Amino acid sequence: MGLKFELLKTTKNARRGRIYLPHGVVETPTFMPVGTNANVKLMTPENLKNVGAQIILANAFHLYLKPGIEVLKHHDGIHNFMNWDRPVLTDSGGFQVFSLRKGRKITKDGVLIKSPLDGSMHMITPELSMEIQNTIGSDIVMAFDYCAEPGITHQEAVYALELTTQWAERSLKKIRSLSDQAIFGIVQGAFFKDLRERSAKEITSMNFDGFAIGGLSVGEEYNLTLEMTEFTVPLLPENKPRYFMGAGAPKLIVDLVNLGVDVFDSVLPTRVARHGQALTWKGKINIRAAKHKFDKTPIDKECKCYTCRNYSRAYLRHLFDRGEALGQILLTIHNLHFMMDLSKRIRESIDNDTFEDLRGEVLKYYA
Amino acid sequence: MGLKFELLKTTKNARRGRIYLPHGVVETPTFMPVGTNANVKLMTPENLKNVGAQIILANAFHLYLKPGIEVLKHHDGIHNFMNWDRPVLTDSGGFQVFSLRKGRKITKDGVLIKSPLDGSMHMITPELSMEIQNTIGSDIVMAFDYCAEPGITHQEAVYALELTTQWAERSLKKIRSLSDQAIFGIVQGAFFKDLRERSAKEITSMNFDGFAIGGLSVGEEYNLTLEMTEFTVPLLPENKPRYFMGAGAPKLIVDLVNLGVDVFDSVLPTRVARHGQALTWKGKINIRAAKHKFDKTPIDKECKCYTCRNYSRAYLRHLFDRGEALGQILLTIHNLHFMMDLSKRIRESIDNDTFEDLRGEVLKYYA
Repeated sequence: MGLKFELLKTTKNARRGRIYLPHGVVETPTFMPVGTNANVKLMTPENLKNVGAQIILANAFHLYLKPGIEVLKHHDGIHNFMNWDRPVLTDSGGFQVFSLRKGRKITKDGVLIKSPLDGSMHMITPELSMEIQNTIGSDIVMAFDYCAEPGITHQEAVYALELTTQWAERSLKKIRSLSDQAIFGIVQGAFFKDLRERSAKEITSMNFDGFAIGGLSVGEEYNLTLEMTEFTVPLLPENKPRYFMGAGAPKLIVDLVNLGVDVFDSVLPTRVARHGQALTWKGKINIRAAKHKFDKTPIDKECKCYTCRNYSRAYLRHLFDRGEALGQILLTIHNLHFMMDLSKRIRESIDNDTFEDLRGEVLKYYA
Repeated sequence: MGLKFELLKTTKNARRGRIYLPHGVVETPTFMPVGTNANVKLMTPENLKNVGAQIILANAFHLYLKPGIEVLKHHDGIHNFMNWDRPVLTDSGGFQVFSLRKGRKITKDGVLIKSPLDGSMHMITPELSMEIQNTIGSDIVMAFDYCAEPGITHQEAVYALELTTQWAERSLKKIRSLSDQAIFGIVQGAFFKDLRERSAKEITSMNFDGFAIGGLSVGEEYNLTLEMTEFTVPLLPENKPRYFMGAGAPKLIVDLVNLGVDVFDSVLPTRVARHGQALTWKGKINIRAAKHKFDKTPIDKECKCYTCRNYSRAYLRHLFDRGEALGQILLTIHNLHFMMDLSKRIRESIDNDTFEDLRGEVLKYYA
């Protein structure tokens, strides 16, 4: 309904695709910057466009708490509210079931979640999540799921899986009654292959516009993330986009593309920027380090971002040293540019059958 | 030497002028945004140009502490370091003699000042201040002065004045030996008219390129600020620029222009922006107020700034409510645009002989 997906090319498992959405076209593979509170931290929409962001992620639960859906309705949705005219994907609140698990209460109906802002309790059902995401007006809505924590038993994971399937059905039914927004189903199943298989079967049996792999990259070993992804991806249909929730490390991204994933998101590149860490094609750089004090070179001489075209490491170090937030702004621009450049080079390498070389280059510097 | 000043028009006391500097032309009257640590807080140079900033102020003492003059020398000065190609004025450290008076020690030679960063003691002499400002490469250098605190006795004020005169002589001699940078002398004399008169006489007897009124707007009553300025301005030569140090309130600015002042600076417009206060032609607005929750209108419908063209009060309020620094960025842009717009309208009103009307308008909303 709400999107068209073209699979342009496949090299081994890596896929080159294109998603047509109401607010624009998204070339895949691509990274999505995270804009939890209807803004990517420290970035104007122009900054995001200049680094090449095609689509951003916003969080339904956070926006439901503040500014509240009435404010978003009053502004005709998030695009108008935050002055962003390109696609938006919203998560459903399912991840907050995981991240805010202290004080939550899960029932068949939905989840009672404690607000991290004021401790108030909020009952989030699949139907409410769809209403919120409908009001937000996102280009891609996520089904409301139960993202279980690592270390749960097989029995607990079955319960989470079954709820996720029921909530997926209710999410799909509800959003279709409200709008023609695209909606992605989410495969759960924790770290049990039989459950991943069952979840994938149940979720892909429904008419979602794309599929996400949820419940991974939540603290487990790196190899387990890859193993579960490698197991799950082939269970997803080829003709729909695949979204791995919560991947921002360059190494993880190339490894996931290698397994056939199309879309990623994470706060990592922007968060580490605020702490002085710059991502480059030769690995990470801590801009606060004393060795940069007199360094007139940019973070990366090859980089075409605004920050690298105009500022020395010494200047950036000075800004961090003095606690000037302009340093965080400039590093956020650089890191997002790097992530979008990485996405672009991944796409080009699939086009040119050189993805393996590119992946090798990234793995060399992000071990 | 380092500047050319054209007095284009005088209406009563208000002056319309133009200062030619190595990095560009400054139309006066004008407000100068403050960039203490080689950046105006949260602003890129492009932001500053977009709001119409013609010249910014940086602080020699702060830059001497961090990043240190060796780093600035290595970058061939502040313009290259911070990526700003328009004029820069540096204060001399004299104001820090006032603001960091805890733990300082004043001698004929100079001032021992305690670093606010690490408590280390630094001996700042007029000669060192000139060396610092020469390395910074500012378009306008300020003489090193003794900015006395309010409430000092006549006798203490005489001592401060005499030191200021001696240091002015040493500053002028030193900077002329180093470069052809323009340098402004600073008139002190605390709140004693006989001392203001004596200081003005002594300072203006030297061949400075412009003159500043220092030691006012340091906590005294508003009327006393105006009274002392009104008394001091006529003691300054007509053919050189006049700079009132530390004025950022709209009311104070129009009152000072009315007395014949050309240039101003203050952290006020950027500082209050970071606390959610927007300056408008109808007075101040607290963007955090609950009444803006659903307000789809911009801060000021007439305002042409980036923020007002693109964002609602409701969105700005939301950003502040969630502690998102983008809100501070957007309000800083707005407030600086307002200050530059105010400067521009003051200039136009002098050109059109309507300055009194404009001043009346500002005083109506900033009582």
